[in-house]
Amino acid sequence: MTDAVQNDTRERLRALVESDRFKNTIMTVIIVNALTLGLSTSDRAVAAVGPLLSLIDTLALTVFVIELLIKFFVYRFAFFNSAWNIFDFIVVAIGLMPSGGGLSALRGLRVIRTLRLLSVVPQMRAVVQALLDALPGMGAVIIMLSIVYYVFGVMATLLFGNVFDEWFGTLGRSIYSLFQIMTLESWSMGIVRPVMKEFPYAWAFFVPFIMATTFSVLNLFIGLMVNTMQSAVEDETEAEFEGLRDLVKVETDIVGEQVAAMHEELKAMRAELAALRNARDG
Amino acid sequence: MTDAVQNDTRERLRALVESDRFKNTIMTVIIVNALTLGLSTSDRAVAAVGPLLSLIDTLALTVFVIELLIKFFVYRFAFFNSAWNIFDFIVVAIGLMPSGGGLSALRGLRVIRTLRLLSVVPQMRAVVQALLDALPGMGAVIIMLSIVYYVFGVMATLLFGNVFDEWFGTLGRSIYSLFQIMTLESWSMGIVRPVMKEFPYAWAFFVPFIMATTFSVLNLFIGLMVNTMQSAVEDETEAEFEGLRDLVKVETDIVGEQVAAMHEELKAMRAELAALRNARDG
Amino acid sequence: MTDAVQNDTRERLRALVESDRFKNTIMTVIIVNALTLGLSTSDRAVAAVGPLLSLIDTLALTVFVIELLIKFFVYRFAFFNSAWNIFDFIVVAIGLMPSGGGLSALRGLRVIRTLRLLSVVPQMRAVVQALLDALPGMGAVIIMLSIVYYVFGVMATLLFGNVFDEWFGTLGRSIYSLFQIMTLESWSMGIVRPVMKEFPYAWAFFVPFIMATTFSVLNLFIGLMVNTMQSAVEDETEAEFEGLRDLVKVETDIVGEQVAAMHEELKAMRAELAALRNARDG
Amino acid sequence: MTDAVQNDTRERLRALVESDRFKNTIMTVIIVNALTLGLSTSDRAVAAVGPLLSLIDTLALTVFVIELLIKFFVYRFAFFNSAWNIFDFIVVAIGLMPSGGGLSALRGLRVIRTLRLLSVVPQMRAVVQALLDALPGMGAVIIMLSIVYYVFGVMATLLFGNVFDEWFGTLGRSIYSLFQIMTLESWSMGIVRPVMKEFPYAWAFFVPFIMATTFSVLNLFIGLMVNTMQSAVEDETEAEFEGLRDLVKVETDIVGEQVAAMHEELKAMRAELAALRNARDG
Repeated sequence: MTDAVQNDTRERLRALVESDRFKNTIMTVIIVNALTLGLSTSDRAVAAVGPLLSLIDTLALTVFVIELLIKFFVYRFAFFNSAWNIFDFIVVAIGLMPSGGGLSALRGLRVIRTLRLLSVVPQMRAVVQALLDALPGMGAVIIMLSIVYYVFGVMATLLFGNVFDEWFGTLGRSIYSLFQIMTLESWSMGIVRPVMKEFPYAWAFFVPFIMATTFSVLNLFIGLMVNTMQSAVEDETEAEFEGLRDLVKVETDIVGEQVAAMHEELKAMRAELAALRNARDG
Repeated sequence: MTDAVQNDTRERLRALVESDRFKNTIMTVIIVNALTLGLSTSDRAVAAVGPLLSLIDTLALTVFVIELLIKFFVYRFAFFNSAWNIFDFIVVAIGLMPSGGGLSALRGLRVIRTLRLLSVVPQMRAVVQALLDALPGMGAVIIMLSIVYYVFGVMATLLFGNVFDEWFGTLGRSIYSLFQIMTLESWSMGIVRPVMKEFPYAWAFFVPFIMATTFSVLNLFIGLMVNTMQSAVEDETEAEFEGLRDLVKVETDIVGEQVAAMHEELKAMRAELAALRNARDG
Repeated sequence: MTDAVQNDTRERLRALVESDRFKNTIMTVIIVNALTLGLSTSDRAVAAVGPLLSLIDTLALTVFVIELLIKFFVYRFAFFNSAWNIFDFIVVAIGLMPSGGGLSALRGLRVIRTLRLLSVVPQMRAVVQALLDALPGMGAVIIMLSIVYYVFGVMATLLFGNVFDEWFGTLGRSIYSLFQIMTLESWSMGIVRPVMKEFPYAWAFFVPFIMATTFSVLNLFIGLMVNTMQSAVEDETEAEFEGLRDLVKVETDIVGEQVAAMHEELKAMRAELAALRNARDG
Repeated sequence: MTDAVQNDTRERLRALVESDRFKNTIMTVIIVNALTLGLSTSDRAVAAVGPLLSLIDTLALTVFVIELLIKFFVYRFAFFNSAWNIFDFIVVAIGLMPSGGGLSALRGLRVIRTLRLLSVVPQMRAVVQALLDALPGMGAVIIMLSIVYYVFGVMATLLFGNVFDEWFGTLGRSIYSLFQIMTLESWSMGIVRPVMKEFPYAWAFFVPFIMATTFSVLNLFIGLMVNTMQSAVEDETEAEFEGLRDLVKVETDIVGEQVAAMHEELKAMRAELAALRNARDG
């Protein structure tokens, strides 16, 4: 196959994958696949039409693999420039993994494929993008929270780990328990009161932790809100100020033109006066 | 009955149903009915004045049916153009259903009628309307959340359904459990810790779910708030900018008029000067 | 005692009760009384200095009663114009009630007196006032929530009351349980899951209730926030707009004056021209 | 050592401790120490490389002590002017305390040292500073909440302390329980329902407490948000208004200059006219 022929094929395929028809087809396959995956959770449906559900699932996966192969052929490595493509790739790849043996959990992961709806429908993409856009502004606070979690996690493990192995036995368990405590779920009746039976001053560890983390998280969202608001107000008033600036310019220009016209009149008059004097002096 | 007579009746009835007196009567009937329905929850009250409560309930229902019949006669099918009318219709219709046999639950539904207070009192209508107006702006995020719920629901059913039948046995149960987890109610002590006894990595499923959904819901409300705020600020500053624009116009117009008057003066003077020269040259 | 003498006494007492020294004395008595009431919760402190604590409590109450009597003598019935005075009056009156017999609960209520700190310290008064000022704006939504609570309370009592007597046996219990459910405390594991064992479709009652009420409450706070914000932004930009308006006036006035001065010049010139023509014609 | 030599040494050490290299070294030591402290929570790691971990910990502590000694030598008592330095000092001092005997809890506190990351990394410092800056604006509400907690704590102890010793036996236990209730954790199923079994009207104590405190805390955050927002909007519009003010000045200055130039022209013309009349009259 010559390069020209290959390029021609690429261009045709590019037109295909970028056509609305192709996108709608893929979306339909995703939705149908989502429904069959949903049906496969029902024992009755599996008993009745199990093989059909498996067949549709395999067909859908085949369609997705072909789609990605075409896209990869068309865009080459530029394919991986888009985070959405990488997402599609990973999500489809999960479905290709062997699900036999001890890996039956992977069978459940196949439904993640349905999340491709978020990357295929433009409106959904915009919503997800808006959520992700909020993350960078939260970076510093998230790092701070991670440090706080690490420090309190290590402390909790060293302080309470021996007695309360299930909750604070390892660093991982401690961090999970601290997350639960931050969400305020059963923090007192479930965790802190039992701990206080052994360590009466445990409240001096947990209450400041709750206050510090909830205060930080709330501040995080306040910051997010203020940012969103600020740019919204900015967009809003920007136009108003623009309009006002234009008005000031236009209005002063009108006066300026009147003044300029008058200046012309004045010059003409002065010329007339000069003529008068010349006539007289002449 | 001739058409003229019928039209005349319709106009009179329209005046009736749109009169404040009529509305207040209906509102009184709703409140009295609400009280009798409330009393019917008390065994002592039912024992003492049960038949009276039933009678008042039947009377109230009769009044509502007649009210709707009149309205339907007056407005014809335009009656169904208002969502509030459809609400009134459904709510009254529920009371007309037979409540005998296995349908005793319907007896409890009769009290929904009291919600007509929200559609009859204008201030309440405004509040409900404001809440409903907020919904469309939330559309895209709600669809996104639905997809996330569906995907996580199917996954939870496939992954944990066999072992934890009560919580994740069917797609419906999984979605209900995920809703409970999103509200943070007993998510860890009640659900995730027991699940982690069987599936040690279950936290890697639930913690991201909690983070993603609470973050989305919070963003939803931030968006709502920013929208409300933006239009409030807009209304606020709009008037200020309007005033400022008017001021700029008025002030420059004053200067402009002064300049224009002076220009006239100047023109007159120039004419004078020309006349002077003409006279001299003449 | 003549009226003049009485009036003189009143004026002197008014000066007294409005003096900083008097206010500080009262505040000190409140704080000391707060500490003795706090100490009276400790069995050891009561064993050691119980009679002293009782004595101080009685003295403090005497001081408060005398304070209120003086104020009532000074302000007469105008005393009751201030909500803060009514609050002080009620709070002190609670301490005068007999606490013997079955009314030992009233002994615990005496400490409410300490809340007088909120009415005596001006900064605290401002904070409480700010909180109370937020209430009227919430009126309509609170009425709406009350209607929703009433309707769902009656329904829950009729639907679930027979089986779950402890939670929904009476209208009062139902409303308390619904309040608990709205705060999301144990709503699912504690209440709805057990109810669903008997009534499988109970989720269709509770989940909409949770969504509607939390959405309403959140909207309530969004409204509150937008209001506070709006007036804050208004105050902020009001001054800016005021400054800008002044600037536009000043600047155009300067130009206007220049133009007016020029107009004078022009008039003088025209007079000169007239003189010139007259001289020529003369 | 002469003063000059000592001063010279101080200046060199100041240059050292303020160099990026020094700061990065300290940061590296903090991170390495954080990791070894983290590893010391794992029994396996302690079994394998326990002495090494202890050695690194001792070395890190030595580095921190030397660092603080140098800083103290360089800055003298000005060292304690910075809250960050005091924080560093306390956090390092905790590590120097004897950890034998009954004080094994102090061993766990050593990891607080890792929080020095928040004081050493400038971005983290900014985040913490922003959080701390929010506190003063919350002062009045926090004092109000403290008074409310004290009053309700004393009341709960007096009212329920005898029967529910574990929850309300002392003032301290009551305040802890009220904090738990404010966070809504198990407030009803865990605390208030059991209390209501003994004191049927306990809801009249707890429900108002929940409403008052959550409403206050929410208002606190609304206030915080409005403040942050206000200053953000202020900064935003301040620049816009500044620009508009400049524009108004520039534009009117242009017109003013034109008018002034014309005024000059006019004066010159009037002089000319005067000369003409003089010549004629002369």
